[in-house]
Amino acid sequence: MAKLPAMLSLRHLLILSLAVNVSLVLRMVYEGEQGETNKKMGGYNRIFQKSRLVIPSTSFANSTRKDCSGGMDKIINLDHGDPTMYERFWRQMGDRTTIIIPGWQSMSYFSDPTSICWFLEPEFAKEVVRLHNVVGNAVTQDRHIVVGTGSSQLILAALYALSNPNAAQPISVVSAVPYYSSYPSMTDYQKSGLYKWGGDADTFDKDGPYIELVTSPNNPDGFTRESVVNRNQGLLVHDLAYYWPQYTPISFASDYDLTLFTVSKSTGHAGMRIGWALVKDGEVAKKMTKFIELNTIGVSKDSQLRAAKVLKTVSDSCEEENSQGGEESFFKYSYKMMEQRWKLLRAAVDSGDLFSLSEFSSGFCNFLNQESETQPAFAWLKCEGDIEDCESFLRGHKILTRSGKQFGASPKYVRISMVDTDDNFMQFIDRLSTIQN
Amino acid sequence: MAKLPAMLSLRHLLILSLAVNVSLVLRMVYEGEQGETNKKMGGYNRIFQKSRLVIPSTSFANSTRKDCSGGMDKIINLDHGDPTMYERFWRQMGDRTTIIIPGWQSMSYFSDPTSICWFLEPEFAKEVVRLHNVVGNAVTQDRHIVVGTGSSQLILAALYALSNPNAAQPISVVSAVPYYSSYPSMTDYQKSGLYKWGGDADTFDKDGPYIELVTSPNNPDGFTRESVVNRNQGLLVHDLAYYWPQYTPISFASDYDLTLFTVSKSTGHAGMRIGWALVKDGEVAKKMTKFIELNTIGVSKDSQLRAAKVLKTVSDSCEEENSQGGEESFFKYSYKMMEQRWKLLRAAVDSGDLFSLSEFSSGFCNFLNQESETQPAFAWLKCEGDIEDCESFLRGHKILTRSGKQFGASPKYVRISMVDTDDNFMQFIDRLSTIQN
Repeated sequence: MAKLPAMLSLRHLLILSLAVNVSLVLRMVYEGEQGETNKKMGGYNRIFQKSRLVIPSTSFANSTRKDCSGGMDKIINLDHGDPTMYERFWRQMGDRTTIIIPGWQSMSYFSDPTSICWFLEPEFAKEVVRLHNVVGNAVTQDRHIVVGTGSSQLILAALYALSNPNAAQPISVVSAVPYYSSYPSMTDYQKSGLYKWGGDADTFDKDGPYIELVTSPNNPDGFTRESVVNRNQGLLVHDLAYYWPQYTPISFASDYDLTLFTVSKSTGHAGMRIGWALVKDGEVAKKMTKFIELNTIGVSKDSQLRAAKVLKTVSDSCEEENSQGGEESFFKYSYKMMEQRWKLLRAAVDSGDLFSLSEFSSGFCNFLNQESETQPAFAWLKCEGDIEDCESFLRGHKILTRSGKQFGASPKYVRISMVDTDDNFMQFIDRLSTIQN
Repeated sequence: MAKLPAMLSLRHLLILSLAVNVSLVLRMVYEGEQGETNKKMGGYNRIFQKSRLVIPSTSFANSTRKDCSGGMDKIINLDHGDPTMYERFWRQMGDRTTIIIPGWQSMSYFSDPTSICWFLEPEFAKEVVRLHNVVGNAVTQDRHIVVGTGSSQLILAALYALSNPNAAQPISVVSAVPYYSSYPSMTDYQKSGLYKWGGDADTFDKDGPYIELVTSPNNPDGFTRESVVNRNQGLLVHDLAYYWPQYTPISFASDYDLTLFTVSKSTGHAGMRIGWALVKDGEVAKKMTKFIELNTIGVSKDSQLRAAKVLKTVSDSCEEENSQGGEESFFKYSYKMMEQRWKLLRAAVDSGDLFSLSEFSSGFCNFLNQESETQPAFAWLKCEGDIEDCESFLRGHKILTRSGKQFGASPKYVRISMVDTDDNFMQFIDRLSTIQN
């Protein structure tokens, strides 16, 4: 690790401190605005929330949750993208998203037997369409909606639906580096004869049909993407989990053949396990439905009903904000939170020479009706100089991140969750600054 | 179709009519007992509930729900095992199983990161253990609980966990004829290189490792089963979805390596999509958890919390019945309903010579503390005489069932759901009698 001159470190610490002050003032302004609500919450919304999640390894399965106070000994886990930062918003919304389900409700396997996706709750489908219309991030007309147990199940359903069971060889599944770290294992864990991971889309040169997974904005690096292979016989799956106003300017309504969304990254309700696909071709929607029938015989009705209520509240908050100049909408609120966090992170990174971040251009957001920033749900941090393994380096400082290697990229990069609790995030900013000094 | 003498038909009609009378009287007694509750339900509990589900084909995907009045034109769909008959019980329980989930609750991916199954809600795990202890149908000590999106997902997780990724060939998956109709397609739809459907366990003679799926009581025929291959290198998955007191005497606490249960058949909450596995080996539980992580990144928390409340109410109802001589427990109630239905079915079948049913021996049920009947959730009906294709024959009379062929058995058999709505079931009994006359 490069040793930095003491003067430089002090200057950078000052910058960081000022950035923290700005953040605190901003947050106090928020708290003032929402004072009445906060009082009702019994002091929940203190500046630093209690730490929620500390996990000692990069595997989901080895996770442990601890309540530790700060300090250099605490393990700060920002490996997963657990979107716990939105919990405060939903607490402030009080009962507006509380759901009540009597014991006799939704007992049947069936939600709407007249729909291709017979386990899709009509109320959920209605709110999906409404939210896309409100936000303007996707065309829903003439689309089939297929609900999934999170968008993970829908990615697998899409691979199943787009592959040919009579093909001589499994179809190649590709995505441009850096790609979402789970794509290779999700594609290959069943050793399917239908589809097979084919690696980096940028270097893919095999003839014949292929499936390209296009994540935009991209996980891990946050850039807007388009398909890169662009050959005939290409089948595209657009994973738009992060195409929401808090992460990126909404500059157009997506209009692809097969597009995936999920509540975990849009509203933060990861525990619901609800995602949805917008599908042009009825036969593809049917095959995806068949996959989910064989995989899990449908999708939890309880979560669909709850998701419908959450999406409704988000749409309501957007419409009320616009029509009455009322309370901040969910997206305005979450946009400001992400903005703050990215300011703090950039200040911490700029306080030394050990790390660097990508620069993003801003763009006009049709939803926010203003120029808005790209502020991804993950930071794609690069270790500079002679640090070759950034994940190990940070792990040595008890910061858990996901190595660039897992995304098909260089180990000089790591992916860091930007949507964890305030407490974890602020300790991370503090630790990053300390490392550089 | 054989023509029967008119005298015989009349006699059998009389028997059937008497059986229906017995049923109605029994039901009126129930209604009387539960009068107060019923009044609150706004007259829901009329003798014949409104028809819920009429589906014109054997595929889930082609289902349609219609509200038709009775008569010979109505399609009676008893193909699926949609357990809608229990809805009335849960309505009568009022708010005891109503669940309230605030918008900010259960947002994280994680339920209990210290558990092997990190997405398992501790409250659900607690109620699973309690219910097995109350009913006495499974040993839970020194077991890992893995929750799944229904037991379907757990079957796939078990195949994944028990197969060897480095094996030269996929492991054979077998089950004795008649086996659950979805086992072959569930095993093979991904064309997995890990496992492959191997057919009837009774004739399986391939050397080397294999997985045997043992369903007991069996779907479709209701018989108690044990493994049949019994060679070394055999790995067993016990699917005990129907090992509950309403279907079969509880004569022992199951104590296998890997056992599956589901709320859809125990309490009737199919729409929740919640199942659980009791697993002896920690490594197998880890691999099953990994499967679910890659498949759906966990299981709906909303449904787990709701399932916990439902299971708690079932256990409470059992303990209250025993300790205070109070209201009927869920299992006593459902046992009586199944008992009635089987009496009606046997009377209808006995009213002619076209059909036959298996005979079951009764046994002592440790839970009910009495000699109890085997009264499966499905009837395994045989067409007698020259009717070779029973499913087509019944379809000709607008009764939809699942052909024996789909269970690896003779087309002279069909599987008929015994857990549908009262309305559908009674119309089926009526139709069956009419056919024979």
